[in-house]
Amino acid sequence: MNKSRLEAFSDGVIAVIITIMVLELKVPHGEGLAALAPLLPVLAAYVLSFVYVGIYWNNHHHMMHAVKQINGSILWANLHLLFWLSLVPFFTGWLAENHYAPTPVAAYGFVLLMAGLAYYLLSQCLVHSHGADSPLARAVGRDRKGIISVVVYAVAIACSFFNEWISMALYVAVAMMWFVPDRRIEKVLGV
Amino acid sequence: MNKSRLEAFSDGVIAVIITIMVLELKVPHGEGLAALAPLLPVLAAYVLSFVYVGIYWNNHHHMMHAVKQINGSILWANLHLLFWLSLVPFFTGWLAENHYAPTPVAAYGFVLLMAGLAYYLLSQCLVHSHGADSPLARAVGRDRKGIISVVVYAVAIACSFFNEWISMALYVAVAMMWFVPDRRIEKVLGV
Amino acid sequence: MNKSRLEAFSDGVIAVIITIMVLELKVPHGEGLAALAPLLPVLAAYVLSFVYVGIYWNNHHHMMHAVKQINGSILWANLHLLFWLSLVPFFTGWLAENHYAPTPVAAYGFVLLMAGLAYYLLSQCLVHSHGADSPLARAVGRDRKGIISVVVYAVAIACSFFNEWISMALYVAVAMMWFVPDRRIEKVLGV
Amino acid sequence: MNKSRLEAFSDGVIAVIITIMVLELKVPHGEGLAALAPLLPVLAAYVLSFVYVGIYWNNHHHMMHAVKQINGSILWANLHLLFWLSLVPFFTGWLAENHYAPTPVAAYGFVLLMAGLAYYLLSQCLVHSHGADSPLARAVGRDRKGIISVVVYAVAIACSFFNEWISMALYVAVAMMWFVPDRRIEKVLGV
Repeated sequence: MNKSRLEAFSDGVIAVIITIMVLELKVPHGEGLAALAPLLPVLAAYVLSFVYVGIYWNNHHHMMHAVKQINGSILWANLHLLFWLSLVPFFTGWLAENHYAPTPVAAYGFVLLMAGLAYYLLSQCLVHSHGADSPLARAVGRDRKGIISVVVYAVAIACSFFNEWISMALYVAVAMMWFVPDRRIEKVLGV
Repeated sequence: MNKSRLEAFSDGVIAVIITIMVLELKVPHGEGLAALAPLLPVLAAYVLSFVYVGIYWNNHHHMMHAVKQINGSILWANLHLLFWLSLVPFFTGWLAENHYAPTPVAAYGFVLLMAGLAYYLLSQCLVHSHGADSPLARAVGRDRKGIISVVVYAVAIACSFFNEWISMALYVAVAMMWFVPDRRIEKVLGV
Repeated sequence: MNKSRLEAFSDGVIAVIITIMVLELKVPHGEGLAALAPLLPVLAAYVLSFVYVGIYWNNHHHMMHAVKQINGSILWANLHLLFWLSLVPFFTGWLAENHYAPTPVAAYGFVLLMAGLAYYLLSQCLVHSHGADSPLARAVGRDRKGIISVVVYAVAIACSFFNEWISMALYVAVAMMWFVPDRRIEKVLGV
Repeated sequence: MNKSRLEAFSDGVIAVIITIMVLELKVPHGEGLAALAPLLPVLAAYVLSFVYVGIYWNNHHHMMHAVKQINGSILWANLHLLFWLSLVPFFTGWLAENHYAPTPVAAYGFVLLMAGLAYYLLSQCLVHSHGADSPLARAVGRDRKGIISVVVYAVAIACSFFNEWISMALYVAVAMMWFVPDRRIEKVLGV
């Protein structure tokens, strides 16, 4: 079995997910700038989810690059990750439609948490099949950033019942951690 | 003719199918968890169909791996399979919208049955073009799992007129049979 | 410039077109078979368009196989073909929604005609860039089937103002001509 | 890191964007040609955006052809470009729905401007990573056409507050500049 179709299929699914989210941006009826105003929370949620799905695509790209062979478990672990990512547009829409109300904020964290766990599971399947001292295992490493992300998602879900904006700030912070390659942060985290 | 474009096109269609199903999950208006409750049957149907489409993609991937050449009949047999798979989101939506009423349950079985037959037809076209003692023919084998699946779908359709939950249990059982690689089951079935 | 990205992009667009058409099949509210009855004309139109888009994909696949190099004109001739194909779901929906009324039947023929001309234009761009005695030029040949198709579409459009079912029969006949490889027909046509 | 997955992912996203726009063409209820009349402004906007997205795909194709290696910045610069392109269907819909009213016309120019800047940023990331005397840098060149486009978009946005049809004419003119390879124009511009 070769990995190229796995990559092509994942690229296809992620490409559809990232563009389907735009369908949540319903074309408004008014013609003035005021007609766009109610869409700003939707657009903000779309930008955040776009960055998140982009991060997953980037990380998937990096990890798959070191992959030599795949098997049935890896195929399913990959589909499992794609499943949670495919729910991101729905939860993004719920979040935006309700103007970042507590429950949708927690639910958004839940889907990020599940995608994070699914990614971790996929990386473990890959390491398991390639051996602990393969280049892949070294590339995946201890994945501190991944572990920190999952912990922060859990904290953000808990926070959402007190102050949902702290949760949103935490989601943005995690995205920034992946997005901005800051040498100092990476040194501190040892990633 | 080479097989790479056939694979790429099939990957594209299956990727769109698997993500289009999420559009059935309409973003609810309420902001509490209660607003998500009516979506649970939709989500459950989505998960089942996601697993089924995933199984087809996995099997397609495996079978195509052993393919050496393709011809016009194979192109059309493949499009025929994609046609039935493209109807899965519609029947998943009908099933969920009607809370697993008997007729939609039977109809869901019908589309699974047709996809199963289309897959069988494709495998036979491939074996025919590669010869009975090609590696492909050995890989496809007697395809007991495929034959069992089609028989179980037919039984489930018949059951739906008495008790639709038995049918649903049968659909889940077939998905499990493909999903869980159980050595003992595989030994018993001789697959 | 290489052709692989042209193929990949075309595969992506055609894959989305062929699956977007299913979105026209709106999930009905009733749970009996009677609820599906009004969808039968939609499904029939979908099947016809699925076959047509499948024929274009097959022909595109065959023609591109013999292509050695591409240039700017070919990129745009290809996008021009994809443009007309991207309108197929819209005209399929209009046809089905109006139960094959004369004007939508003529409009459906118009989009098939334009796609046929766009395909012819693409083939001429390819022959022009590869030379008249290239393997590609021989593969494209005199393209009698393509010319016959375009003529039949024009006849069908004219017919639609008298009897729209003759037009529909002509569309089905053209699809059959491409779909069923009949040696005798091919001999008579000299294709 | 290799560029093939970057190309495949970009192809997927652009393919979905270009076909999602057709969903704005809502199937009309009437069956006469008169029912299509209100869709003409939508169709016109769709054609313009189709050409624009096609231009981006062509240019992306050309530029990526000369690329040797990619890195994290390039991945993100590419996603940034895809982000602005993914908003094109929304702004196309807003433009058409409001029959080319001044604010939607300006907003359409804004999204073209941002996509133009994102493309420029991507080209600079690529030149930076390949070196100023790489074949890529020569291929990108001074990108006068790109700079002219961005300037014209800005002018068109300003014009929209006086006469929105001048703005639309400017958008069409820029598309023509990319679309029609005119040796004389190219000589004058020195591109």
